[in-house]
Amino acid sequence: MIDTKKKFKISIDLMGGDNSPDKTLEGIDLFIKRYTNQNDYFFYLFGDLKIVEPKIKKLRYLKSNFQLIDSKIIVSNELSPIAALKKGKGSSMWESIQSQTIYNSDVSLSAGNTGVFLVMSKMILKMIEGIDRPALAGLWPSENGMNLVLDLGANVECSDKNLIDFSEMGSALYKSLFPEKEVKVSLLNIGSEELKGTEILKKAHSKLKILESMGDFKFVGYVEGNQIMTDFSNVIVTDGFTGNVALKTAEGVSNFLTSNLKKYLSENIISKVSLIFSYFSLKKFKNKLDPRKYNGAIFLGLKGPVVKSHGSTDALGFSYSVELCYKIAKGKLNDKIKNNLEHAKNLDEKT
Amino acid sequence: MIDTKKKFKISIDLMGGDNSPDKTLEGIDLFIKRYTNQNDYFFYLFGDLKIVEPKIKKLRYLKSNFQLIDSKIIVSNELSPIAALKKGKGSSMWESIQSQTIYNSDVSLSAGNTGVFLVMSKMILKMIEGIDRPALAGLWPSENGMNLVLDLGANVECSDKNLIDFSEMGSALYKSLFPEKEVKVSLLNIGSEELKGTEILKKAHSKLKILESMGDFKFVGYVEGNQIMTDFSNVIVTDGFTGNVALKTAEGVSNFLTSNLKKYLSENIISKVSLIFSYFSLKKFKNKLDPRKYNGAIFLGLKGPVVKSHGSTDALGFSYSVELCYKIAKGKLNDKIKNNLEHAKNLDEKT
Repeated sequence: MIDTKKKFKISIDLMGGDNSPDKTLEGIDLFIKRYTNQNDYFFYLFGDLKIVEPKIKKLRYLKSNFQLIDSKIIVSNELSPIAALKKGKGSSMWESIQSQTIYNSDVSLSAGNTGVFLVMSKMILKMIEGIDRPALAGLWPSENGMNLVLDLGANVECSDKNLIDFSEMGSALYKSLFPEKEVKVSLLNIGSEELKGTEILKKAHSKLKILESMGDFKFVGYVEGNQIMTDFSNVIVTDGFTGNVALKTAEGVSNFLTSNLKKYLSENIISKVSLIFSYFSLKKFKNKLDPRKYNGAIFLGLKGPVVKSHGSTDALGFSYSVELCYKIAKGKLNDKIKNNLEHAKNLDEKT
Repeated sequence: MIDTKKKFKISIDLMGGDNSPDKTLEGIDLFIKRYTNQNDYFFYLFGDLKIVEPKIKKLRYLKSNFQLIDSKIIVSNELSPIAALKKGKGSSMWESIQSQTIYNSDVSLSAGNTGVFLVMSKMILKMIEGIDRPALAGLWPSENGMNLVLDLGANVECSDKNLIDFSEMGSALYKSLFPEKEVKVSLLNIGSEELKGTEILKKAHSKLKILESMGDFKFVGYVEGNQIMTDFSNVIVTDGFTGNVALKTAEGVSNFLTSNLKKYLSENIISKVSLIFSYFSLKKFKNKLDPRKYNGAIFLGLKGPVVKSHGSTDALGFSYSVELCYKIAKGKLNDKIKNNLEHAKNLDEKT
C-alpha cells in the first residue's frame, strides 16, 4: 500500500467527454511526462475497469501512484441534469466527486456534462457555509501570463454579496495557482468612472474598497472588456451572464481572426511561400494562444474543489486540466478560500 | 441657391473629435471621392468659419453641394453632459443636430463627446412616441459582410419592451443600410435553448416569435457571443451593459491577437523575410478588418437619425461615418422605424 498521506490526491472521471477514456488517460500521461520530477501526486481514477485497464498498460508514464476504481455507469451527455442525477449515482463522475469524502482526495476532475457535474458536485460536496452561489472561474491569456475571470456562467444574475464572494474566492484561487504574484481584483463594467454601471456593481465597488484593507488582494476598481487581457488586474469579477458573453465573444473573435488570417495567407503562391519563412514564428504565436493551455474551469464555493475540462478538448488539453488540479491541491485552495471568506464575514459584521 | 429638395441632406459637426476640423473635412472629401458619381447628397457643415474656410479651399472634391454655417462655440470633451448642455447651445454640435428641424436635414453626424451628443440629441430631436430608451447601434464585421449589434451602451438595464423596440429599430436600420438582404434578428444570450437566460430575455423571446409574423424580420432565436460574427443572424439585440462588454472584449481580443502576431512575425530575420512575401495578403487581411470601416454608432429612437463617429478615428474612419449617414438618409431610416414600431404597437394592443 502506498502512503498517500504526503501526496496531493487528484480524483479523475476517466469516462466523461469526447474520445474518453483514451483522451483522459493520455492526458494524465502527458501531465506526468511534464511533472515527472515532482513525485508528490497520486491519482484516484474512476472508469470501467474492463475498458480502462488494457489501455493503462500501454501508457508510458502512468505506472505507479494511482488507484483504479471500477465504476461502470456512464453519465450520457444527452441527459438533463435531473435525469442524470437519478441514473448517475455510482457513475465515474459521481464517484470521482465522492472520493473527496471517501478517500480524502483533494480535488475532482471531469470532462463530462457541465450542468450535471455542477449539480452532482453541489449535492455531494455541499456549499461552503455562507456562500449562496457557486461560481465558474476560467483562465484567460494576458500580456504577462494568465488572468482569472469569474463567474463564467453558473449564475445568470448576481447580488453584490455574490460579487464580493467571487472576489474573495477568485483571489484565493489566483494565489493558489500563482503564489509569487500579487492579486489584483477588478469588477467588469462599462466604464472606469465610479458612477458607471448598475447599483449592484456600485455597492460591490464600495465594499471591495473596504475589504482591500484585509490584505487578501489589491482592489483596482472597474475594468472594461478591452482590459480583460491586460495586466491592469488579474482577477476579473462579473456576473455569470456577462462573463459568459465575454468569454464566448472572445472565442468568436479569435476564431474569426485566425480563420481569416489563414485564408489570406494561403490564397496565392507568393503568400504561401511566406508561410515557409514564418512557420516557426506562427507556430510560437499559435502555441502561446493555444486554448488547450487554458483548458479547465474551476467551480468555486463548494466544500471541495472541482475542475471541469472542456468535453471536446484532446489529450493535451486534458493534461492542462490535470495540471490545474495539481496546482489547486498543492496551493491548498480551500484553506485559502476559508481564510478569505472569514475576512468578508468580518466586514459584514462591521457594516 | 441650390435646390436641396431632391438631395439627401447630411449635417456635420466639423469641430468635434481629435484633429478636427482637419480630420472631418478630409473625411468628407474622401467620402465624395468614393461617391462622386452619385450626385444626390448635400452637406450642412457647422464650424468656426475663420478656421474652416481656408481649409475647405484646399480640398479636392468638396467644391459644391454644401453650405457652411458659422458656429464658434466648441463643446469640450472634458465637460460633463450637464455643463456641456449649459454652454453648448449654439455650438457646432448643437447646430448640426438642430439643423434637422431648421434645414430639414436628414441626419446629423459628430465625432465629439458621446454623452453630450446623446443628451443634446434627445433634447433637440425628442424621442419617438412610445420609445422609452434610445439605443446605440454599431456595425460588426461578419463572415459575409456586416452585422448590427444594439444596444452598445446607452442603457445599462433594459426591459423586454426595450429589447422589442431595439429589434424593430435595428431591423429598420439594417434594411436601410443593406436593402437587398433579409433581416435576421437574434437575442444575445448564454445558451441557445429557450429555457436559458433571464426572465426579461424569455419574455422578449416569446414576443419576438409573434412579432415575426408582421414581416419586418425573421426571428432566429438566441445567439451566444461566439455567433455575433457569423451569418446566423445580422441584427443582434442585447441590453447596453452586455453589448458594451461584448464590443470592448472583442476590441481587446483583436488588439491582443494582432499585436502578438506582429511581435512574432518580426522577432527574427527569417520571419521578417516572410513579411515580404505575405505583404499583400496581410494588407488585405488588415484591410478587411480595419475598424475604421465600421466607424460610426447610430442613436436609434430619436425623431431624427444621429450618427456618432469615434473621437479618435482619422479622416478615413470619419469618411465611413459620412457614408453611414448617406445610406441612412437614402434608406429613409426613420420612415422604416415608424412603420416597424407600428407593428410592435399592434402586438401590444393584441396581447
